[in-house]
Amino acid sequence: MRVAVDMDEVVADAFPAQLTWLTERYGYAFDPVAYCGRKLAEVVAGEHHQALQAHLHEGSFFGDLIPIEGAKAALTMLNEHAEVFITTAAMEYPKSLPYKFDWLQRHFPFIDSLRFVFCGDKSIINADYLIDDNARHFERFGGEGILFSAPHNAGEQRYRRDSNWSEALALLGLA
Amino acid sequence: MRVAVDMDEVVADAFPAQLTWLTERYGYAFDPVAYCGRKLAEVVAGEHHQALQAHLHEGSFFGDLIPIEGAKAALTMLNEHAEVFITTAAMEYPKSLPYKFDWLQRHFPFIDSLRFVFCGDKSIINADYLIDDNARHFERFGGEGILFSAPHNAGEQRYRRDSNWSEALALLGLA
Repeated sequence: MRVAVDMDEVVADAFPAQLTWLTERYGYAFDPVAYCGRKLAEVVAGEHHQALQAHLHEGSFFGDLIPIEGAKAALTMLNEHAEVFITTAAMEYPKSLPYKFDWLQRHFPFIDSLRFVFCGDKSIINADYLIDDNARHFERFGGEGILFSAPHNAGEQRYRRDSNWSEALALLGLA
Repeated sequence: MRVAVDMDEVVADAFPAQLTWLTERYGYAFDPVAYCGRKLAEVVAGEHHQALQAHLHEGSFFGDLIPIEGAKAALTMLNEHAEVFITTAAMEYPKSLPYKFDWLQRHFPFIDSLRFVFCGDKSIINADYLIDDNARHFERFGGEGILFSAPHNAGEQRYRRDSNWSEALALLGLA
């Protein structure tokens, strides 16, 4: 069994870090329901979203993220039962690439870096499962997509879904 | 039809650039037959190879390469008949990643950057064909591997082979 695992919102907690950045600079007091089923760009003022995008493009943001709760223990176990590849759509922020590489090596040193995949269109991924928070990647994926819950995908109904890493392992028959 | 295309020795002329680097520093006068069927590490003195590796790890080497002859015209045509992905085993030199990204955008601007794939183990690639100079990537690849000739792979007999981009297009039925 081969399992491809997305990075942002699945093993790296990118969304809260973006909220914190916006709150610290622009004083947003986010209502949790405000971004349910919506992308940040739909909630935040245009100029603030542009400033956030410029920050993301600089790259180092991706080197400072906190791992998603339970991800390290879950991938440690998963790695014993499956070929685990980390497949991240990084081409939107090319300067993030070395930061993402270092981050993965620091937090998930048990995954061989030859199994890191930095791509854009994930239909190129050959795996049995893809665990991802963006359902668009499942539409042309050859295996089964498993949706990792994040605020923006709250309305998505087409795929099996997990809310955390315990549920993800259960869906894969490993818990 | 989806065609995955390797980068170094297939669209980027990395090997001669490495030879030039070694010649300029250490005065090698390379005999063309010396590295036929052998890797550079087998021909060059250990300390010189280590210095070259340190240079490659710094990353900028990959931003200055000359495109392989005929690659631009061939990929322009191929891109009209197939989904072309650039799939490069870049994880050995993580600092090369932004340089490779910029290089691809500069020399092959007609290929959508969402179709750049930076990986290590190419068995993760889902494509009909993989054009690559390293036959080891074909062993677990689900499609057909087409070997792009380079000095080091001179002895490889297991796969269809092309010597240049005209022959590669012909093998794909496009010339």
